[in-house]
Amino acid sequence: MYSFLNDYSEGAHENILNALISSNLKQSAGYGLDEHCEEAKVILKKVLKNNKIDIHFMTGGTQTNLICISSFLKQYEAVIAVDTGHIATHETGAIEACGHKVITTKSNDGKLCKEIIGKILKTHNNEHMVKPKLVYISNSTEIGTIYTKEELTSLYNYCKEKDLILFIDGARMGAAITSKKNNLELSNLVNLCDAFYIGGTKNGALLGEALIICNDRLKEDFRYNIKQKGALLAKGRLLGIQFIELFKEGLFFDLANHANEMALLIQDALIKEGYTLLIESPTNQIFPIMPNSSIEKLKEKYDFHIWEEYDENHTVIRLVTSWATDKDKVLSFIKDLKNLK
Amino acid sequence: MYSFLNDYSEGAHENILNALISSNLKQSAGYGLDEHCEEAKVILKKVLKNNKIDIHFMTGGTQTNLICISSFLKQYEAVIAVDTGHIATHETGAIEACGHKVITTKSNDGKLCKEIIGKILKTHNNEHMVKPKLVYISNSTEIGTIYTKEELTSLYNYCKEKDLILFIDGARMGAAITSKKNNLELSNLVNLCDAFYIGGTKNGALLGEALIICNDRLKEDFRYNIKQKGALLAKGRLLGIQFIELFKEGLFFDLANHANEMALLIQDALIKEGYTLLIESPTNQIFPIMPNSSIEKLKEKYDFHIWEEYDENHTVIRLVTSWATDKDKVLSFIKDLKNLK
Amino acid sequence: MYSFLNDYSEGAHENILNALISSNLKQSAGYGLDEHCEEAKVILKKVLKNNKIDIHFMTGGTQTNLICISSFLKQYEAVIAVDTGHIATHETGAIEACGHKVITTKSNDGKLCKEIIGKILKTHNNEHMVKPKLVYISNSTEIGTIYTKEELTSLYNYCKEKDLILFIDGARMGAAITSKKNNLELSNLVNLCDAFYIGGTKNGALLGEALIICNDRLKEDFRYNIKQKGALLAKGRLLGIQFIELFKEGLFFDLANHANEMALLIQDALIKEGYTLLIESPTNQIFPIMPNSSIEKLKEKYDFHIWEEYDENHTVIRLVTSWATDKDKVLSFIKDLKNLK
Amino acid sequence: MYSFLNDYSEGAHENILNALISSNLKQSAGYGLDEHCEEAKVILKKVLKNNKIDIHFMTGGTQTNLICISSFLKQYEAVIAVDTGHIATHETGAIEACGHKVITTKSNDGKLCKEIIGKILKTHNNEHMVKPKLVYISNSTEIGTIYTKEELTSLYNYCKEKDLILFIDGARMGAAITSKKNNLELSNLVNLCDAFYIGGTKNGALLGEALIICNDRLKEDFRYNIKQKGALLAKGRLLGIQFIELFKEGLFFDLANHANEMALLIQDALIKEGYTLLIESPTNQIFPIMPNSSIEKLKEKYDFHIWEEYDENHTVIRLVTSWATDKDKVLSFIKDLKNLK
Repeated sequence: MYSFLNDYSEGAHENILNALISSNLKQSAGYGLDEHCEEAKVILKKVLKNNKIDIHFMTGGTQTNLICISSFLKQYEAVIAVDTGHIATHETGAIEACGHKVITTKSNDGKLCKEIIGKILKTHNNEHMVKPKLVYISNSTEIGTIYTKEELTSLYNYCKEKDLILFIDGARMGAAITSKKNNLELSNLVNLCDAFYIGGTKNGALLGEALIICNDRLKEDFRYNIKQKGALLAKGRLLGIQFIELFKEGLFFDLANHANEMALLIQDALIKEGYTLLIESPTNQIFPIMPNSSIEKLKEKYDFHIWEEYDENHTVIRLVTSWATDKDKVLSFIKDLKNLK
Repeated sequence: MYSFLNDYSEGAHENILNALISSNLKQSAGYGLDEHCEEAKVILKKVLKNNKIDIHFMTGGTQTNLICISSFLKQYEAVIAVDTGHIATHETGAIEACGHKVITTKSNDGKLCKEIIGKILKTHNNEHMVKPKLVYISNSTEIGTIYTKEELTSLYNYCKEKDLILFIDGARMGAAITSKKNNLELSNLVNLCDAFYIGGTKNGALLGEALIICNDRLKEDFRYNIKQKGALLAKGRLLGIQFIELFKEGLFFDLANHANEMALLIQDALIKEGYTLLIESPTNQIFPIMPNSSIEKLKEKYDFHIWEEYDENHTVIRLVTSWATDKDKVLSFIKDLKNLK
Repeated sequence: MYSFLNDYSEGAHENILNALISSNLKQSAGYGLDEHCEEAKVILKKVLKNNKIDIHFMTGGTQTNLICISSFLKQYEAVIAVDTGHIATHETGAIEACGHKVITTKSNDGKLCKEIIGKILKTHNNEHMVKPKLVYISNSTEIGTIYTKEELTSLYNYCKEKDLILFIDGARMGAAITSKKNNLELSNLVNLCDAFYIGGTKNGALLGEALIICNDRLKEDFRYNIKQKGALLAKGRLLGIQFIELFKEGLFFDLANHANEMALLIQDALIKEGYTLLIESPTNQIFPIMPNSSIEKLKEKYDFHIWEEYDENHTVIRLVTSWATDKDKVLSFIKDLKNLK
Repeated sequence: MYSFLNDYSEGAHENILNALISSNLKQSAGYGLDEHCEEAKVILKKVLKNNKIDIHFMTGGTQTNLICISSFLKQYEAVIAVDTGHIATHETGAIEACGHKVITTKSNDGKLCKEIIGKILKTHNNEHMVKPKLVYISNSTEIGTIYTKEELTSLYNYCKEKDLILFIDGARMGAAITSKKNNLELSNLVNLCDAFYIGGTKNGALLGEALIICNDRLKEDFRYNIKQKGALLAKGRLLGIQFIELFKEGLFFDLANHANEMALLIQDALIKEGYTLLIESPTNQIFPIMPNSSIEKLKEKYDFHIWEEYDENHTVIRLVTSWATDKDKVLSFIKDLKNLK
């Protein structure tokens, strides 16, 4: 049985494990104030070509989303997200648990644009309704799509015009940035949103997300928020050490690129075999619409996620590749795919 | 410079790192539903001699405290804690941030007893006040003391009588259980409280606390609470693997024992040299009252925490040893102590 | 200028004011523990033909909604409501501010039924999503429609089957119960939901809603919740006195009936004049689709709410009548309506 | 039986009831946007000699406290209060329920000063602790004492120096301002704190507190906070009408003055009879220490609050007078007092 269930089925890249071993008995300060975290920040600032950003390391996406959103907003302010957005679906109401409404909107490609946001702003115009204040997007999105530089620029300009905060969930930022369809550089993000994060968990780390706060007004006292939500690791070094390894020589990009390439092999094979896709994805998540009988056969050898019912006889499935996906297994899967019919 | 600042200055015990390496590329389910977590639970249930308990792994103490307390209580219910309790002092108001008042009370030895709780219950008797419902204690306490089996039995019986939940912060449970003054077995706890946790972070793990829920009424849907607070690790295996190593052959107890022994060496030397203690501690945190001039000299070679001002010329300091404390450094410290005068 | 904006434009029915005067200098206990509140509860229990219900008086609908929902639910549990539901639209995210997600669903008639709820339950099946637990409905609904006895019975049976709490926002319960299309008696509600309230504010009181808790499991310590949310009036007598007047001789029903009759006069005239309705309403809120030019003319003499754009040239407006609506003004309005074309 | 239990045992001053009657059938806008509220604000701005303040009317003290504090603070910020402060004792943890810790401190006279606050600031100096940000005081205090102009000036200057918000609970502001020991004018408050309120409920209104926001930075979008907490009355006119009556010709001051005079009569008699006081109060709450046997006798004819046990044979009681206290009853009480021995 081989799993295409998600991008966090394995442990961590060996460089990370080696770095944990070599630093292991060195004493260091607690709570992310250690020299490893400092070094990781220096490296990230270089990669992001900006020295003014604030960087905080956290353990996971839901945690980062809830800490950021709850600390960026006043109590009556709300979030705008697409209805497939991770905070709107698979975070057990974490944002609402912090007191904030998530206003959702339909979107065919998993992305937000100024027209959609404009409609929401128009209907939220007095104190009997929440006040939309933060725009939440994911890149890559929950259905594998990515924002072009032009789309993100347009969105951020609109946000600034309307005094909205733009926050990017980057749990799969590696997949987005290394996608062949992408024209954004990671360093562009610093100028195209108020805060974003770079996901390590889904790209080769044991755990860890690097939060980048670009907007000065959102920086103050941020560590209080992290601590209050139970997210300040005593051994914060664990996160710093990993981000050093991911970014000191570009490992982060290599790992994401591998995941994308493996996905592309599968997607191309699916298209070739005549399967329709829910949406064509340029990243490491792909969404074919498959006959139920084929799914049953594939399930004998592979694990993957049932995304949604398509019609009586067809179902959308999700196949995810990762930094650790074995190319041989991908080729076997493609072979099995050909033999399905 | 050698640090006696805390018990989380180093990485993890080598067995843990080795286990991470050997399991690394094995695919497993996400979110703590993997076979490592399952195995760790089996081992812990054996150690705790109980198959009915629920076990959940979390990343840190503040996180475990806030998730448990917020999920165990109704919105108007409150916690009782000593004023040195971790939740009352060094968790940035995490419990209040979840909506619950922490009613604090003075205590000379860092411990709660039924007489103190009784007084609080007496004055909280109508709907204009919060309703005390959960008793929070730490073992070992924040000032190094421990609960005897008799004390804990008395406290828990009182809690049951008064329909109070007894919750034990066990961030330093290893130090408590392996203390020479201790007469509790770890497995006794299952019958002496409603929920408790066993701290890995401060006893040789990279991170991780094992929460044990003993009271059936507190078990339902608990994973919803973990997820909603952003505490469900995608790679939950990271926690399971560590707890297997800590408990499969008693490593947990060996590590804690070492920390206690190192502390005892220092405490005995302090007493011998005529220093007074804030309180005599049977665990890995010790609290000497030192002349300010001596503190300055020690600071040249050692890191430790300034606990509180004692008088104009004296200060209470906290010295903490850990699983990784080097005995040679302890002996050097004792030697330096003798040369202070 | 005459206002059809809402049903709370005037003060209170004269019986209420007279009762305030006659009881004014009598000393009574604070916080709703006075003899007026007790008497009001006795009267209501008689009207509702049930002695086991718990009754609490509160000042407004949003307050009642947020106190009930937040106290009935655990932190990860969510509400199901139609997307026109008051809590989902015009309460500034009050429910989310208490930590709970409101799962909304489309509905053509402003009502929920088991088929709609069933679909939501089906997709919310693990701890990565909120757990739907409370069904929120309004009677009459926000678009004027009402639940029949059969509909409510079916809905409540389904809720019991699925272990869901059924809560009815009765801010306009008077209009529902006295509607000509209604076949429910007020006393039926005690057996057809877990909790509901009877709105005084929109039916002749200065302010006040009578909350009825039918389900024993929801009763415990409820006053703690009221007090904690700042809703326990020092002079709770103000609410008790009003509900005595509203219910001791059926004034509540007379007032609601008047409002409905006035609305029906207008709705009938609209239909006669050939206007289309957003939905035909059997209660005191009506929703004609009017040419924009007609709306402009009516606006010169009447106040009403612009509900939503219908098409380029037409707009849905909302006309609301109340216990205090002057029949002469209604007749003038109808006359003006005829002269519009 | 005559009650000295509190200052909200009766209804409202007759001018208020008359004003409700005379305005009753006039249609007005909802949610506090009516002309009565506007007029009340104009009158209050004149009384307070300031046109820049923002004024909002709310229904009670706990509600006003929780809305202000939760909207003024970020999530990790905390309140400083004396341990007798109303928010710390008798509001069912309303502030904590909004997420904020209340740091309490002992105080002999129920008041805060900069020395006490300074000590708290010194120990709250990093992100592991809450950040003290708002100073909560009551005037008059919960034990009847008042702030002099000099004390309040010193406190506010200190708050500004330390970037703290000074918020005054004025549920009994009338008693404070009309006290013979007082040297503050009501209008001084605008320049001596960031926000305060003027209590109507305990001084002749049916219900209602007038919140005054002086600090511009706290004004923005405040109505969103009111609505979200369920505190925006549909018939907001009810509050405006009352504050017009209380302030258009000084009725507010006359009523408070009467309460104070009645209390002074009793307190003087107590002193004359040789009773000790918990603290000498210059306002409408007095706190004699009485033999338990005397309390039993008084309880046959009078209602009052048992404040706290003093010693085995003595108890502190609280006697409260109000705008409606009957002088004849006060004289009878004094007579009975003399006959006690």
